This record gives sequence, C-alpha cells and structure tokens, in this order.
Amino acid sequence: MPLLKTIVVDWHGKLRFSGKNEKGLSVNFDVPVEKGGDGTAMTPMETLLACLGACTGIDIVLIMKKKRQNLHGLTIEVTGNRRDEDPAIYTEIGIKYIVRGKSLSKEVVERSIQLSEEKYCSVSGMLRNSAKITTSYEIVEL
Amino acid sequence: MPLLKTIVVDWHGKLRFSGKNEKGLSVNFDVPVEKGGDGTAMTPMETLLACLGACTGIDIVLIMKKKRQNLHGLTIEVTGNRRDEDPAIYTEIGIKYIVRGKSLSKEVVERSIQLSEEKYCSVSGMLRNSAKITTSYEIVEL
Repeated sequence: MPLLKTIVVDWHGKLRFSGKNEKGLSVNFDVPVEKGGDGTAMTPMETLLACLGACTGIDIVLIMKKKRQNLHGLTIEVTGNRRDEDPAIYTEIGIKYIVRGKSLSKEVVERSIQLSEEKYCSVSGMLRNSAKITTSYEIVEL
Repeated sequence: MPLLKTIVVDWHGKLRFSGKNEKGLSVNFDVPVEKGGDGTAMTPMETLLACLGACTGIDIVLIMKKKRQNLHGLTIEVTGNRRDEDPAIYTEIGIKYIVRGKSLSKEVVERSIQLSEEKYCSVSGMLRNSAKITTSYEIVEL
C-alpha cells in the first residue's frame, strides 16, 4: 500500500521558508545574505545533501546494529557538485562515511554502505537518477 | 564553473542525525517513535519534500516580485506518494501553491510556477527523474 505524506511549506517574507509535517515538526530554509536572503538557515539544495547523509546514516546504524557491531560514532560528509546551467542540479555527489568504533569489521562496513546505496536508502534512490553518486569510507578504531 | 558544496552529517545516537553547512547552519533529523526513533525532528524523506517546496517557493517569490505582483502570502503543500518496495522512493509528487495577495495576475502565477518547474528549481530538477511531479494552484485575493 503506497504511503501518502504531505508537507506544508510556508513563506515568512524575504526568502525565508519553513516546512512542517503532520505532527508539527518543522524545518527552516533561507538563502545566504550574499544571494539576497538573511542567512538564517540552510538552503533547500544544502538541506537536500543533508537528507541524503541522514537517510543513508540511518541505514548504516540499523544494519551495523543488526550485525552486532560496536559502533561509537558516525560522520557522513556529503559533497555535491552543481552544474552551471539551470536547473543547477548536482551532477555528482560523493558520500564519505567516517565510521568510529571498537573492532569494527571492514566487511560489515562495506556491506552496510552497499546495502544502503543499492537497496534501502530512499533519498539515494531518488537522487541517483540525476547525479552520479560515489561512496568512500574510513574506519577509525577507538 | 561548477560549485562544490559539502554538508557534514553527524550521528547523535539512536536514529538522530544533524547536517551542518560550511557556515555552521544546521538541520536535524529523526525517526518517529513508532519506527524506533525519538520523533524529535522530521525524517530525511519528509525533509526532502520540504526542500522541494522551499526551493520552488523561492523561485515563485523572486519571479512574482520581478513581475511587480503584490504577493502577501505563499503556502506550498507538497504531497509525496511512496512506493512499497525498497528503496521506498516517492513515485508521484504533487505541489499545490496557495498564492495570496492583491490583484494577482493568474497568468503571472501560472508562468511563475511553470518557470520554476521547467527551468529554475534545482530540487525539482533532481527529483523529476524519479517521481512524476504535478502542480496545481489556488489564488486567494486579499
């Protein structure tokens, strides 16, 4: 059964916006001062990269927990390369996972990233038809 | 010249994440309680719809201002229809613009939406290869 989800986005003057979900949780958007905004929040295109990082991050945490890995920390650097012409989409996105923990298995880390990218991550599933997404990782043993 | 943008996403335990841009502005993510999270923030897939609404909203505000329209308010309802199988992407997205103002031109509203959708909105440009995006609008005369 498909799942319908509605987000209500409101304009707050200048170039400030907020989006709210059905539970009243919200997210703010703005544009940098040098581009005519007030610079109070991330832009929609920046937030898009954050969505990708958090989405795949959730997968990694869930999969590594299932595989009984002793995960202490996770940082995901998401770098997007925007093209010049309109619409200025990201044509390339790089995701670097920095995985911290005790006695982490390289194989499990690699498999988690692969499962997220190829199977579970919905944001990645939506963006990969527009951008070439590449991944890399670093394991930090604590 | 292509523009490189990096967002750093950090894990904060359970299923909580935050993303930060180069200026230190941030956005939070979580998962609803019924899905194993703490429900403190919107999910990545909800935030993705908010990004789309805010991105096209910025276009509408800028274009209508350029066309000297007396825009007082703008609400954008973004509804996504997720499929069942993994990755559970949105296969259809509907964007409804509720445009409020004085003596607004129907033609300018329509043209603004069309320009955003077809030319300027980068988030739409990234999502439309995965989801069928449809638009509608309502003008509220103040």
